[in-house]
Amino acid sequence: MHRVRVRVVEDALDANNTIARANRADFDRHGVTVLNVMGAPGAGKTSLLERLLAGDGLGDLRVGVLEGDVQGSLDADRLASLHVPVTQLNTDAGFGGECHLDANMVRSALPAIPLGEIDLLIVENVGNLVCPAEFQIGEDARMMVASVAEGDDKPGKYPLMFRTCELVVINKLDLLEHVDFSLDRFDGYLDAVNPGVERMRVSARTGAGLDALRAWMTALPTRVAAPA
Amino acid sequence: MHRVRVRVVEDALDANNTIARANRADFDRHGVTVLNVMGAPGAGKTSLLERLLAGDGLGDLRVGVLEGDVQGSLDADRLASLHVPVTQLNTDAGFGGECHLDANMVRSALPAIPLGEIDLLIVENVGNLVCPAEFQIGEDARMMVASVAEGDDKPGKYPLMFRTCELVVINKLDLLEHVDFSLDRFDGYLDAVNPGVERMRVSARTGAGLDALRAWMTALPTRVAAPA
Repeated sequence: MHRVRVRVVEDALDANNTIARANRADFDRHGVTVLNVMGAPGAGKTSLLERLLAGDGLGDLRVGVLEGDVQGSLDADRLASLHVPVTQLNTDAGFGGECHLDANMVRSALPAIPLGEIDLLIVENVGNLVCPAEFQIGEDARMMVASVAEGDDKPGKYPLMFRTCELVVINKLDLLEHVDFSLDRFDGYLDAVNPGVERMRVSARTGAGLDALRAWMTALPTRVAAPA
Repeated sequence: MHRVRVRVVEDALDANNTIARANRADFDRHGVTVLNVMGAPGAGKTSLLERLLAGDGLGDLRVGVLEGDVQGSLDADRLASLHVPVTQLNTDAGFGGECHLDANMVRSALPAIPLGEIDLLIVENVGNLVCPAEFQIGEDARMMVASVAEGDDKPGKYPLMFRTCELVVINKLDLLEHVDFSLDRFDGYLDAVNPGVERMRVSARTGAGLDALRAWMTALPTRVAAPA
């Protein structure tokens, strides 16, 4: 019985990777770079996107957003006033209220995304520090948002997510003096699971550090097209 | 194919409920009341338990803690200094790194919990606002911890968790003046998914509101034994 169960799980994961590759081929054909944004509920993913994409946004880069949520369109509604195309994907309609996006869900949303009109697709995953990390969706890069309000031990408790991303954004820096969070201790836990991974310290509220993050995102398509 | 898939899911859920009932029978036989504590990563579940159980703790009530984490024993280590028995349950060893506790995982931990020596078992679930709500573990009551740093829209985005608990604890009240969080708006979202559910506003950091929460926990076994 145990062997059978493992086989099923492996098949399911393979199916996800197969579909992720198909997504990736579609993105590549349209010249769209895809960034998978993950983090705990309330880490500030949507607030960051609001700030990053407001005004001049990412300059000449044409951006689209895919919002993943269990239910509702609160985040997509917040982003709707920014002049970027936003697509809402709910995991409770037909996907059993899943706690993450997988490749097949993203594939089902593709017809609603204007791939021919964007250069960068930002996918805001379901707020969750566990399962989203297990499912490739066809992305080129992964960015994680962690808030100082969550505590500095999170890389040690949710290692897979911190290990599988290219950038860790430490958000809510404005709260640092009000919470028990040591940046050094966080860096120590982070380096233990993903040594030397790029990290930025920002505040979506005050705007601190957002220029650097905006530059990172703007350069992503070039970096992906011609890796060092 | 669709019907087959649904059937499998239903069987799995039924199996969980079957095992949850078996857990519950074991808890009842030992006269142990079980509280399932859930919330997002970094909501402050462990910090709250630290504060609640320090010193005189819950008075005459003998408490045990079951700590659920994907990996590591950071939380259990924090609680180890509190003279209460703490059992660590990791979901990555044999359970595939699950993002929640289920009845079978808790059942596997039962031999390590001194049921004969405690009156209240507090189960700290994996930090996650989605899946833990879907799995009964044999508990008598559910308590949710939400932090004001997470934003006031969370009941609208993760309705099942807020709907299936008897008490919602709004933590990190000391941060209220530093974040964009409206208690009224939170209450509005909460009442939309779980009208009138009992709620408490606390700060694990300053201790505000903890007496009321301690009283709620202390009275839980009596309340469970003789429902109104």
